[in-house]
Amino acid sequence: MLKLNDYKQWFSQNKNDLLEDYFTLLRFPSISTDPAYSKDVHACMTWLSDYLKERGFAVEVWPTSRYPVIFATHLEAGPSRPTLLLYNHYDVQPVDPLELWQSPPFEPTIRDNCVYARGASDNKGQLSYTLSALRAYMDLAKQHRLNLKLFIEGEEECGSVGTSKVLVEKKKSLSADYCLVIDSGVPHADTPAVTLGVRGMTTMEISLHNSKIDLHSGVFGGIALNPNQVLVTLLANLWENGRVAVPGFYDEVTGLSIEDWSVLDHTFDRHHCEKQFGIRAFGGEAGYSVHESNWIRPTLEINGMWGGYTGSGFKTVIPSSASAKISCRLVPKQDPDTIAKRVIEHCRRMLPKGIEMKYEIHAGGLPAYTSSKSRIVSTSKEAYKEVFGKECSLILSSASVPIVADLAAATGAEMALIGTATNEDDIHAPNEHFSLNQYHRGFLVMSRILALLSQS
Amino acid sequence: MLKLNDYKQWFSQNKNDLLEDYFTLLRFPSISTDPAYSKDVHACMTWLSDYLKERGFAVEVWPTSRYPVIFATHLEAGPSRPTLLLYNHYDVQPVDPLELWQSPPFEPTIRDNCVYARGASDNKGQLSYTLSALRAYMDLAKQHRLNLKLFIEGEEECGSVGTSKVLVEKKKSLSADYCLVIDSGVPHADTPAVTLGVRGMTTMEISLHNSKIDLHSGVFGGIALNPNQVLVTLLANLWENGRVAVPGFYDEVTGLSIEDWSVLDHTFDRHHCEKQFGIRAFGGEAGYSVHESNWIRPTLEINGMWGGYTGSGFKTVIPSSASAKISCRLVPKQDPDTIAKRVIEHCRRMLPKGIEMKYEIHAGGLPAYTSSKSRIVSTSKEAYKEVFGKECSLILSSASVPIVADLAAATGAEMALIGTATNEDDIHAPNEHFSLNQYHRGFLVMSRILALLSQS
Repeated sequence: MLKLNDYKQWFSQNKNDLLEDYFTLLRFPSISTDPAYSKDVHACMTWLSDYLKERGFAVEVWPTSRYPVIFATHLEAGPSRPTLLLYNHYDVQPVDPLELWQSPPFEPTIRDNCVYARGASDNKGQLSYTLSALRAYMDLAKQHRLNLKLFIEGEEECGSVGTSKVLVEKKKSLSADYCLVIDSGVPHADTPAVTLGVRGMTTMEISLHNSKIDLHSGVFGGIALNPNQVLVTLLANLWENGRVAVPGFYDEVTGLSIEDWSVLDHTFDRHHCEKQFGIRAFGGEAGYSVHESNWIRPTLEINGMWGGYTGSGFKTVIPSSASAKISCRLVPKQDPDTIAKRVIEHCRRMLPKGIEMKYEIHAGGLPAYTSSKSRIVSTSKEAYKEVFGKECSLILSSASVPIVADLAAATGAEMALIGTATNEDDIHAPNEHFSLNQYHRGFLVMSRILALLSQS
Repeated sequence: MLKLNDYKQWFSQNKNDLLEDYFTLLRFPSISTDPAYSKDVHACMTWLSDYLKERGFAVEVWPTSRYPVIFATHLEAGPSRPTLLLYNHYDVQPVDPLELWQSPPFEPTIRDNCVYARGASDNKGQLSYTLSALRAYMDLAKQHRLNLKLFIEGEEECGSVGTSKVLVEKKKSLSADYCLVIDSGVPHADTPAVTLGVRGMTTMEISLHNSKIDLHSGVFGGIALNPNQVLVTLLANLWENGRVAVPGFYDEVTGLSIEDWSVLDHTFDRHHCEKQFGIRAFGGEAGYSVHESNWIRPTLEINGMWGGYTGSGFKTVIPSSASAKISCRLVPKQDPDTIAKRVIEHCRRMLPKGIEMKYEIHAGGLPAYTSSKSRIVSTSKEAYKEVFGKECSLILSSASVPIVADLAAATGAEMALIGTATNEDDIHAPNEHFSLNQYHRGFLVMSRILALLSQS
């Protein structure tokens, strides 16, 4: 069996070639949120399809309502051998504010051993080392003992709406034993970790209405009930004694098995939160640690609220309406739509006479957790340990990536989230970058995972 | 003694002349909020000063930090006779949106017996009929048995900051027995009313801060305490059981004498509020009628609040800060600054650990009520009754006009707010107008007040 050093050697022999492809990928301004870049997104997709065809993959392009999915397969190992599905995306975030970039976002530039470009990390960097690892695998493996399916989406940065539908329509083609979402990262550059799952999410917007126009708060103060006052009362009553007070909010929450919870890395870096983000007031659910609240308990947040005059100076109005955007992070067994409806219903019960409530429930996403005992988790863990030279921890993501649950449902696979990106990569921000060191590690981790799964 | 008909006759004889002066006054774009019109404000002031000099007034121009006060006196009646001080202002509001005006705002135009122009009603219309009444008085009175002081300000529409200082500095010159603020109106065109007073006001802004940047509500949900959540809890707790819960909020409130309260017009037109403004939810203080809450009880309103993402769509942030603009309407004996500090202190007591509160208390205004038994009230009431041919009611204004209390303090006078403007004049809005019928009535009311006070 090939050793880690074989891959290191192969990488250094092919480095220039690999970086050239990486840079080519980065030069496409494949911004999926802005229709002005539609041609560039498609051009990026075409280049990637051709790249995969040239390397022996059978490539299908699946159209969606927005940008197509590239579905590439290499199934020579045959039905007796396991199938691994890899998920990446080829679209990127917008680049504004452009003036803050030190080098043009679509002209990749190396400074201090880091590649600077939009997408350098998220997700073209991680896609590129995945492609490099696949190339190495094709070059070096004497026998193909692993079936491969690549699912590369083009609208991750704009909501994955069409992609989610494709996942349902193409379920048959997608079945796999293992699935890796290579769009995650590690807690710090030198700290390996595999992510077992993500929280789900539901988002909603409510608005309360009284008069048909904003009223003078002198003339009508004491007459008209102020929607701002009603809204703050409603919102304040979403919590009670440090827990969400919405009836039924926690009903379906089962929590993790004690075994799964005990193997997770419980280090919570409070000092880092204070220093890096200036967080001085910590929250969390009463009866649970901050870490538990963040990982395995559902939360409710007011993401935005507004009503009345919000400009500079003062305008003494009683506004005609007041609004709030609310989201909940969900844990396994919680259904986004059910939870949203319970929140809305709780608000409705508190409405004073005459105040009208309008609301909208937006598309949500299911939570998805994998057992710490699954094969894909242990394999990934082993690969990380080899490459990083230290034990790999298991973590959860408190964020929500709706596509994860959709992928789990479509593939029927055991699933983990991996990557070598870090919080310092400035993804979605100016001067996004990716360390070539992390690129190399990503390549090695992917290569080892492919080897270990082939070997089983 | 002269009768109402004598004034009617004088008016019709001089009508063209009076309207010409009214129109000249309206042609000055004396917008005090916009420095671009500085020259025009001054030109308007000069024209007015000259006008008053020509009519036998001694005129002083008192500079302020912004636009000067015209102080004109006619003191021939001598110290044994009463002195009446009249308040008006010569500045106007901006005109935007200009495209909604049917005729240019500074080219007065008559349509349907109404004069259309910025300031047609507020306050040049009411200033103009006052000047016309003074002219009639000078023409017709055989003997001057009333000392007159005119205080015409040039920055009412931009906060009266300099004017308030002048009122303190020039206290000696300002002493009077009676004071009329001719910047008010009547409930409906045919319904005469004298306004006994105005509520005071205090305004403040608070903001709550946690992290130094907006945080991802997935990554930090359950970790960072959300300033939006803290703010709604603070704001919701400003009330309890239908009353303001700020300790000490009602401490100094004495209410009106039962006598004063009983003579006020208690008609509250709920149907009009519903139909005209679409108000469906009525508020007010527990234990008081809507009318009492609006007139003689202090109120607290959230005039504006905002935190987090308020644009279209969704952004799942835990904002770094959340803010609110709060105002209180005050009744006699309540001090703006004291009340604001009690509100702030109440909020501070509720602050969770780590959340920083910043606040700003803006300039406030004192309440000012006159007794229903005062001479100026009964005289004004009588004049209205004669002119309108029906009983004149007594009302209070729930709005705040800080200059009223300042004028009361500076003049030491009994004071009332009068006028013939109506809610339908579209003041501060496009197509502001003033009915020539109301102009005529205003002229007659003012003339009768001058005659009645002279006669005493």
